[in-house]
Amino acid sequence: MADSAAPVVDVPALTALLDGTYVEVRNLTRKRLVEYAGVLEDAREMSREKFRERVKQIVVELAGTGQTGLGFPVGYGGGGDIGASVAAFETMALGDLSVLVKVGVQFGLFGGAILQLGTQRHHDAYLSDLVSAKLMGCFAMTETGHGSNVQALGTVARYDVETREFVITTPDDASRKDYIGNAAAHASTAVVFAQLEIGGASEGVHAFVVPIRDGRGRVRSGVRIEDDGPKIGLNGVDNGRIWFDDVRIPRENLLNRYADVTETGVYVSDIDNPDRRFFTMLGTLVQGRVCVGGAGINASKVALSIAVKYALGRRQFGNPGGEEELILDYGLHQRRLFPLIARTYALHFAQEVLAGQLHAVFSAADEVDERTRRALESRAAGTKALGTWHASTTIQECREACGGAGYLSANRFDALRADTDVFTTFEGDNHILLQLVAKGLLTDYSSSFGELDQLGMVRFVAGIAVDTVVERTAVHKLLERVKDILPGGDDWAQEAEIVDSEYQLAMFRWREEHMLSGVARRLKSGIDAKLDPAEVFSKCQDHVIGAARAHVERLVLEAFVDKVRATPEGGNKSALYILCDLYALSVIEADRGWWMEHGRLSSSRSKAISREIGDLCRKLRPIAEGLVDAFGVPAEMQAAEMLA
Amino acid sequence: MADSAAPVVDVPALTALLDGTYVEVRNLTRKRLVEYAGVLEDAREMSREKFRERVKQIVVELAGTGQTGLGFPVGYGGGGDIGASVAAFETMALGDLSVLVKVGVQFGLFGGAILQLGTQRHHDAYLSDLVSAKLMGCFAMTETGHGSNVQALGTVARYDVETREFVITTPDDASRKDYIGNAAAHASTAVVFAQLEIGGASEGVHAFVVPIRDGRGRVRSGVRIEDDGPKIGLNGVDNGRIWFDDVRIPRENLLNRYADVTETGVYVSDIDNPDRRFFTMLGTLVQGRVCVGGAGINASKVALSIAVKYALGRRQFGNPGGEEELILDYGLHQRRLFPLIARTYALHFAQEVLAGQLHAVFSAADEVDERTRRALESRAAGTKALGTWHASTTIQECREACGGAGYLSANRFDALRADTDVFTTFEGDNHILLQLVAKGLLTDYSSSFGELDQLGMVRFVAGIAVDTVVERTAVHKLLERVKDILPGGDDWAQEAEIVDSEYQLAMFRWREEHMLSGVARRLKSGIDAKLDPAEVFSKCQDHVIGAARAHVERLVLEAFVDKVRATPEGGNKSALYILCDLYALSVIEADRGWWMEHGRLSSSRSKAISREIGDLCRKLRPIAEGLVDAFGVPAEMQAAEMLA
Repeated sequence: MADSAAPVVDVPALTALLDGTYVEVRNLTRKRLVEYAGVLEDAREMSREKFRERVKQIVVELAGTGQTGLGFPVGYGGGGDIGASVAAFETMALGDLSVLVKVGVQFGLFGGAILQLGTQRHHDAYLSDLVSAKLMGCFAMTETGHGSNVQALGTVARYDVETREFVITTPDDASRKDYIGNAAAHASTAVVFAQLEIGGASEGVHAFVVPIRDGRGRVRSGVRIEDDGPKIGLNGVDNGRIWFDDVRIPRENLLNRYADVTETGVYVSDIDNPDRRFFTMLGTLVQGRVCVGGAGINASKVALSIAVKYALGRRQFGNPGGEEELILDYGLHQRRLFPLIARTYALHFAQEVLAGQLHAVFSAADEVDERTRRALESRAAGTKALGTWHASTTIQECREACGGAGYLSANRFDALRADTDVFTTFEGDNHILLQLVAKGLLTDYSSSFGELDQLGMVRFVAGIAVDTVVERTAVHKLLERVKDILPGGDDWAQEAEIVDSEYQLAMFRWREEHMLSGVARRLKSGIDAKLDPAEVFSKCQDHVIGAARAHVERLVLEAFVDKVRATPEGGNKSALYILCDLYALSVIEADRGWWMEHGRLSSSRSKAISREIGDLCRKLRPIAEGLVDAFGVPAEMQAAEMLA
Repeated sequence: MADSAAPVVDVPALTALLDGTYVEVRNLTRKRLVEYAGVLEDAREMSREKFRERVKQIVVELAGTGQTGLGFPVGYGGGGDIGASVAAFETMALGDLSVLVKVGVQFGLFGGAILQLGTQRHHDAYLSDLVSAKLMGCFAMTETGHGSNVQALGTVARYDVETREFVITTPDDASRKDYIGNAAAHASTAVVFAQLEIGGASEGVHAFVVPIRDGRGRVRSGVRIEDDGPKIGLNGVDNGRIWFDDVRIPRENLLNRYADVTETGVYVSDIDNPDRRFFTMLGTLVQGRVCVGGAGINASKVALSIAVKYALGRRQFGNPGGEEELILDYGLHQRRLFPLIARTYALHFAQEVLAGQLHAVFSAADEVDERTRRALESRAAGTKALGTWHASTTIQECREACGGAGYLSANRFDALRADTDVFTTFEGDNHILLQLVAKGLLTDYSSSFGELDQLGMVRFVAGIAVDTVVERTAVHKLLERVKDILPGGDDWAQEAEIVDSEYQLAMFRWREEHMLSGVARRLKSGIDAKLDPAEVFSKCQDHVIGAARAHVERLVLEAFVDKVRATPEGGNKSALYILCDLYALSVIEADRGWWMEHGRLSSSRSKAISREIGDLCRKLRPIAEGLVDAFGVPAEMQAAEMLA
């Protein structure tokens, strides 16, 4: 609950709170960003070709400092710290995002695939060179006609028992690799995802190391590469398309951590179920999603820092004769920007929890159970979706809030908006990711069903009682306590204080449980009515997505509330409470129609929430600058001409 | 009300219906766009400098064909048809938008100012040359520190009675002209808005013709011009900043239709009230807003055409073993795209009404009364705001709905999104425009009060009874009939059919009236409580904007319903009814929290509306392609690589 007066914010302490465990890594990254601040202008002024080379050069130099290898084993020149590598990556999102994405492609996707899907022989062969960026690679998973449905991709890797080689082939244009970062110019090696075929039988999607360029940068025979051409943003990254025309690679180039092919062509794997094997392989690549979500959240911080400062310098209209009013003093301007600041804090703390879980799972001495891994993947998917949509919305609103000045590239919104735009699509389309979240909730991350596709999920849910679905969910247990905690018993939704975190949590939890059971009920009744599962799913799809979003928003609020409660008494805690209330109430306001439809919000209470949001914004007005300063965005990254 | 089955759409007839009165002009414009289709690739491939020259060249060539001069008097080489000029401009928005905006700057802003604010001597001196694009000009109104508040701009035009000249001066950097299209490279002449000073007394903002470059393109002495540099989009337009250092121009260069200065320095005007004079001058420039709103709506058509076609070719997931499903068969995909198609139709017809009113007012033989002019300006402001926000939302959603392919520049969304982004800002920031709409509603476009600024408006409204404010509004009269038309008497909101246009209209009208009276009440109680008017306004600002938006959405629905009713029976009428229902119900769904808060929508009815939207989307699925084809976007303008 927020205090009544505007608190005093201790900016350095708040920055330290935000930076958390990895304050040193983040500060070092900020230093690097400042050293390379010139790249922001290069992005505006250089031709696409030149800028690509510039970005490559920066990535190579950063690799030399150790900045980009924190997540790799020490023995191969890495830092041996997953959490640190995520923190470093997130913080790099304050700077040029082509550099960030090139780093992500090289060390996260390409390097991550070698590390996670390969075994000792691959590690020994590639890791040192790729960590130092001597070996540049790409991650060739997505195909033009097969994006989100990776299991359906068309590239084939046929085992030739005679020569003990795999033969990689692109059967049609829909199966060409597409949008592959590093492919158009710089990668010498690709990790290629392809359908493994042995003796005519298909064993599903596996990953292979395929050399695509020779030592002098020439495309190898049998490989065809086309530039994807100019893009909305990220034009410092060389995305391209790759076709394979019977390209032969040694048997040892199969990344064989989860499955292998013997010399004589026998397929072996410790995981019997092919779906489960596939999802286990994909699951090891979860760090990419964690990183992209964090990058979106951090890019939002840059936009908000600039927009708030502009609004504290720019005056418009006001009392005749007197000085014009600062635009941040307008109620509407506060309403546009402050809930976005609150949501940025909320997502930041949720991301911190997620990154912590990632670190724990991937640094664990013992094998982590599958349910925990699936829950992590689900949380990563959901946070990525909300974090990247938040970036799109926030940067756009900040651009508009700066008017014509916001439209000039020198003022940063151009690159921020254009570069982050694809974040909602790559590393998993956000809608598909939320479906993944919903699937996990509806099937309780059940290891025997986690591999189901959407229609399998429909059939699974239809086969069990709705109550069972709901009772298994984590939110169900949380909700059981509500009546004990909040005043009013069953009437808690009408009687609790609006600015009570327990009330807000109860509202979020109630929505999640109700939406989940609603989805389960609809899926069930569709199947009971003998409808085609595809049709049943199609009709419920927005409901499925809604339930997933409600779930993730609940996790975000819990993370924020936990953080505020753990903060020592003082101005910062009070400020965080205001932000936390503002986040929670903004979510409730945006979806108030739903809560009213379901009898959990009265008209008068709904109006009171809107009024409270206005009050919270006015409380934040005096500390708004401190709250964005606490993000710790280096001045050079806010190099907005209009703030000069 | 929509029929139950999917109707058969007659695409050519629907295109003809959309094209309306100006079908020939629109078709001729489409032909021109196809002739210049190569510019879409030029925009992606050329350097900024080269592309600017290319765009200039196209504009000059188009001028030669008469395409761009339709709104000017025949005597000066124009077409003498305001309505045709708007239709031509709107249709040009299907093509490259730098060309469009350069046309808008040259012929709409610069040419429009000379035509509307000048008199015979200016017309004779400039119109023929500017219509043929021999004379290139710019419209120097906006200043860095004075955007939306034009009355507060800082540039000074001091009359020097000795030399019978005006001396134009930029007093400080906040008063430099900024974002001025055509200024950085091509304009030889500027229409400059400046504070007229005579003998130390200020007479307010007036417009002056100021030569800024000589015959060889060199910037004239006393003028300083700086390039605004790269922008988010529209990089074929040369925006720049201009400073004036005591630049002298002859007395005759004052555009003197509404006010003049005699040789001896006496200020004369037929309009006594300086505020009224200022708003009368600005009001003559309303065509620019009409054109930008129409351009936003038409750019949306391009995006929707591409996204729907992509979704009819791309398959993803589906029943195991079988072919994957078309993504347009997913309920969520329909939910994402179809309400945007419906809203595009709705806005198109609203724009048609607006353009018709513009034509009527500006082609009238007799002087049109001031109230009608103010109502036109208000409608133009509101439609521009909704049309341009719609463009931003729609293009973005279409980009995301095409995934990674949507991110490639070759697939059109890049330029569409980047170029239209500033539409929400230029020709009036959308939020400021909606405030203008609200002011008109609250003061009944009263000529003696129409000139009030926001705080004047607060004081004015506070001074009269709330009932008086409401009774004067047009919506009040419309609402009085509701009980006679709909079943259920006072319970109409619960008893009418959801898909009855009268019910939908009643809901929109009720919201508008209620929001307006709410705003009036809040303003009044704030002033009664002796609060500072600025604070009162700031606190109500989102409510003010909300009321204006409700008003414009009502006008849009009325235009759509009128059009559907006037359409002959048949498949097209049925299709339009589905779209009209979908538009209306989507608006109600989006704001259903508000209607529930105010007792006009029950929970069960609200849920029924959401279900009906799903049903309407499914009805549209078979005719979706026909509905976007009917927009008549030339195939060359949909030159999306991914559709090939």
